Amino acid sequence: LSVVGIIPAGGSGERLGASGPKAFAVLAGKPMLEWSLEALAGLCERIVVAVPAGFEDPPDRVRGGPSRSESVRNALAAAPEATVAVVHDAARPLVTRELVERCLSELGELEGAIAAAPVTDTVKEGEDGRVLRTLDRSRLWSVQTPQVFRADALRRALETDPGRLAAATDDASLVESAGGTVRLVEAPPENLKVTTPLDMRIAEAILGSRC
Amino acid sequence: LSVVGIIPAGGSGERLGASGPKAFAVLAGKPMLEWSLEALAGLCERIVVAVPAGFEDPPDRVRGGPSRSESVRNALAAAPEATVAVVHDAARPLVTRELVERCLSELGELEGAIAAAPVTDTVKEGEDGRVLRTLDRSRLWSVQTPQVFRADALRRALETDPGRLAAATDDASLVESAGGTVRLVEAPPENLKVTTPLDMRIAEAILGSRC
Repeated sequence: LSVVGIIPAGGSGERLGASGPKAFAVLAGKPMLEWSLEALAGLCERIVVAVPAGFEDPPDRVRGGPSRSESVRNALAAAPEATVAVVHDAARPLVTRELVERCLSELGELEGAIAAAPVTDTVKEGEDGRVLRTLDRSRLWSVQTPQVFRADALRRALETDPGRLAAATDDASLVESAGGTVRLVEAPPENLKVTTPLDMRIAEAILGSRC
Repeated sequence: LSVVGIIPAGGSGERLGASGPKAFAVLAGKPMLEWSLEALAGLCERIVVAVPAGFEDPPDRVRGGPSRSESVRNALAAAPEATVAVVHDAARPLVTRELVERCLSELGELEGAIAAAPVTDTVKEGEDGRVLRTLDRSRLWSVQTPQVFRADALRRALETDPGRLAAATDDASLVESAGGTVRLVEAPPENLKVTTPLDMRIAEAILGSRC
């Protein structure tokens, strides 16, 4: 297996109040991106980071696309030798090496294996501000990254029109639409997505409690 | 209108590491329950708290039932004069008076109006550890409390068998099943549910930033 790590790092730091891209905001002493790079290091032969225009100078950085999935496609195109792709958002710096390993080992012969946590809130479907129905929570999973794929399956899934790429909220949904089978790998809810300054404080509290 | 506040406070403090019920764990200087009582005070003529056995001595405390909805039923039975019920979990101490007011004003002539936040994660339906489908996130709401109801509609909805009461993850779903129309009132995601010690730290950080 030739494993490539792919880190979409195109998020703006606007909601964080950061002056540059979110991935470069400092979290517990280092750029947020570094935490993900460290979790993936050793498990991937290469790691390709999709960064905003102007940040693509170092090797193994490619320019991000107009949507998240287009960034992933650009990064994957830079690793034609890869047989397995580990996609992980730079905005989830609390990922652990152990979680990446579990996704890799659960992939087996399937097309995908993705980190997900059981939904704990009641979720309802709404329309025009009113409840249509309450969903069966026991069947729902809140999806995270890492998302691990057979690289061929991900390449095929990403060969779709820009509209569908832009609408996809994760890469697994594209692999599912292309007929792939995706396994759910139970992950801790603390593998949170950092969006707001409060999230930064929460993330620092979690990182602090790990030491 | 005669408005009764109903606070199910039956949660154990086990996952918090607290020695007593969760509602009495100290959060930012006072018992968690107090934060909710303060948000509801002035908007409700009475507030009935459903507490674990052994804690029901003071007036307007009733014994909680074996399930959350049975606790709500016990509390509502103690307020036969009520025409509107504001149900709010003691485990959501970050609720604001403003959010309760908005739910009350959005109730209008409907059976219910409930606090909810748009879902921000990708949510998938799973079966046997595999993805069945990715849901359309734009239609999904993560439901919180307060949940405000026409008291008659809630009384009727709670007249169902214990199995359905135990399976209900919120009270609105029972009102929906009984044919009621429930409005979604957009609430801040920071109205979080406190379950773990980390949640306590987050809640204290949020309360600290409000002052």
